[in-house]
Formats: sequence, structure tokens, C-alpha cells
Amino acid sequence: MEIKEAIEHVRPHLTQKRFDHTLRVAETAVSLADQYKVSKEKTELAAIFHDYAKYRPLDEMKRWIISSRLPKDLLLYHHELWHGPVGAILIEREFGIKDPDIQLPIQYHTTGRAHMSEIEKVIFLADYIEPGRSFPGIEEVRNMARKDLTHACLLASRNTIQFLMNKKATIYPETFHAYNDLIKQYGGN
Amino acid sequence: MEIKEAIEHVRPHLTQKRFDHTLRVAETAVSLADQYKVSKEKTELAAIFHDYAKYRPLDEMKRWIISSRLPKDLLLYHHELWHGPVGAILIEREFGIKDPDIQLPIQYHTTGRAHMSEIEKVIFLADYIEPGRSFPGIEEVRNMARKDLTHACLLASRNTIQFLMNKKATIYPETFHAYNDLIKQYGGN
Repeated sequence: MEIKEAIEHVRPHLTQKRFDHTLRVAETAVSLADQYKVSKEKTELAAIFHDYAKYRPLDEMKRWIISSRLPKDLLLYHHELWHGPVGAILIEREFGIKDPDIQLPIQYHTTGRAHMSEIEKVIFLADYIEPGRSFPGIEEVRNMARKDLTHACLLASRNTIQFLMNKKATIYPETFHAYNDLIKQYGGN
Repeated sequence: MEIKEAIEHVRPHLTQKRFDHTLRVAETAVSLADQYKVSKEKTELAAIFHDYAKYRPLDEMKRWIISSRLPKDLLLYHHELWHGPVGAILIEREFGIKDPDIQLPIQYHTTGRAHMSEIEKVIFLADYIEPGRSFPGIEEVRNMARKDLTHACLLASRNTIQFLMNKKATIYPETFHAYNDLIKQYGGN
């Protein structure tokens, strides 16, 4: 799919604010893809579609999770986690995009997972550091993103867990698996 | 087993410092057991034996994990996590103590787990707050221990994850499951 076509598919499903965020994620992701030798075309499509399901009704998302290959334990956790996995399914059913290089980054962009591919790391990170974001510690992650993709993902993952614990939220298991896996890539134990 | 007999079994296997810690854990645990209506006898035995395997050689602990019912994924994580599970096996094999009320608190005293019983919570917490401990935030946990056993365990669990992430250590999955479960008991999502 051409990127312009993708943008026109996504636009009507997002608020203006979310659409602007999506364009910034795409720009950030393409720049990371260039730096880390990942397909720019696939990265840009994944970025454009990453929040495609963000505003679907909860009932509809729940039905997709139940009726598709998605992990059912999502239903036990906060519905904020549903739009990534559901988006990965929707682009396949609606537009025939059946490509793990595009679907997996969308599916796991919120939580990460163990054994993320480079393109998954790029989308996970771009969503975290795009210029509109301001979290505690984000400048450290932005600086690291210029030097080491995996280490930057580790910092983002750790910050995310800290943020969730500070607000006493549950943490989806893939989020922890992502953290442990990234730590292991750094020789931790 | 009488408590005096247990103490004499444990003493030769620990350093003086660790033995003193064990006695403080037992005292703290018995006080919590009294407050939260848990068997004082079982609590005291579990506390006395909680670090029984602490100084076993790594090779021996590894063999126990491989040859017993213990979860094998322990071997993929830091060996500091092995002594609890191995201790739970050793007291059964050496002294015939086959009682989940005593063995499970020993097995999970370092990590916690989802669905901890009251006695498991008491040992998990006593090990964390005994008077010899000084961690950041420990006073908050000690104060909460006087009011709400589960909430105090949640604070201890959260502090532990924060401590491990600050030193860029991996985190054993049961540690996360404990956190998520305790959060859910507090209505989080």
C-alpha cells in the first residue's frame, strides 16, 4: 500500500491530536529506520497504522480479541492495551496487509515483547520519543536512540514500568518480558 | 518439629549475621501472625527455615532444581533466587516437613507470587521489614504492615521491582505476577 493511501485510511479514525501524533511517530520512525538499516517503507506503514484502532468501541475490540488469534489474556488487563493488537488484525482483514514486519510492530507498540525485531524496536521507540512526548527521563532515551536502538528501548521499557507502578497500575506480562529480554541483551542477570 | 530443634538444624548452615537475621524474621513474623490470625507455630517454623539453603553450593542447588518439582526457569535467572525454592525441598527431604503452609512461604519468600496465602504474605513481609533491614521506603512498609498485610506486601513488591530495575537486573516472572495480583486486590487495572 502506498503511504498516502494509508494516511487517508487512518485519518478519519483518529482525532486531530492523535493524527498529528501518528505523523510525528512516522517521521521519527523513518529517521530511526534509516539509521538502523530497517526497511523505511514497512516502518512508515507500521507507524501510520500503529494507532489505527485507538478509538474503536471497547465492545468491538473485545470481539476482535475473542474471535482472532490474539492472546486472550489481554481481556484481563487495561483496555488501553487493546488497540495495538486489534489494529494489527484490522489492517489484515480490511486491507489485506498480512506481513509480520508491519503487523508485529503495531501489535506490540504499547508493551514491547521479548525478542523484538529491529522494526518492532523502531516503532516501540518512535512512539515513546516522538517530539510531542514529554515524560520524565525522555531526553535520556532520545539521546540513547541516536547511539543504540536496543539500549534506548530498555530505558523506555524501564520508564514505562516505573510510570505504571507509580500510578499503581497492573503491568501486562509482555511488558515485563520485554524488560527482562532487553536487560539480558545487556548482560544483566 | 519443635522450634528449638529447627533452630539447631538451621544454625550450622548460616553465617552468624544470617542467623541473627533469621531470628529477627521469626520474631517479626510471629508478631504479624498474631495480628493477622495465622498459625504462629507454622509461621515460626517457616521463618526459621526460610534461608536454610542460603549457603548451599550453586551446583547442589542446581541439582535440586533439576531433580525436584521446582520450576526449571529458575535456572535462567539469578542464583540469588534459588535458595528459597531449594530450602522448601530440603526440609521435606531431610526432616519430612511436607506441609504447603510451611514450604510455600519458604519457596516464595524472595519473589512472592500471585495468590499468596496469608502465611506466605507474613513471611514475605517479615523478611522485608525485620528490624535489621534498611531500604529506601521501608518505614512506609513497616507502618502499613501494622494496618493492612496485603497493602504492605504490595509496597514491598513494588519497592523490590524498583530496586532491581535501578540496578538493571532481570526480574523473575513470579515477582511481576505477585505485583499484578496485589494491585488487582486493590482494584487497580
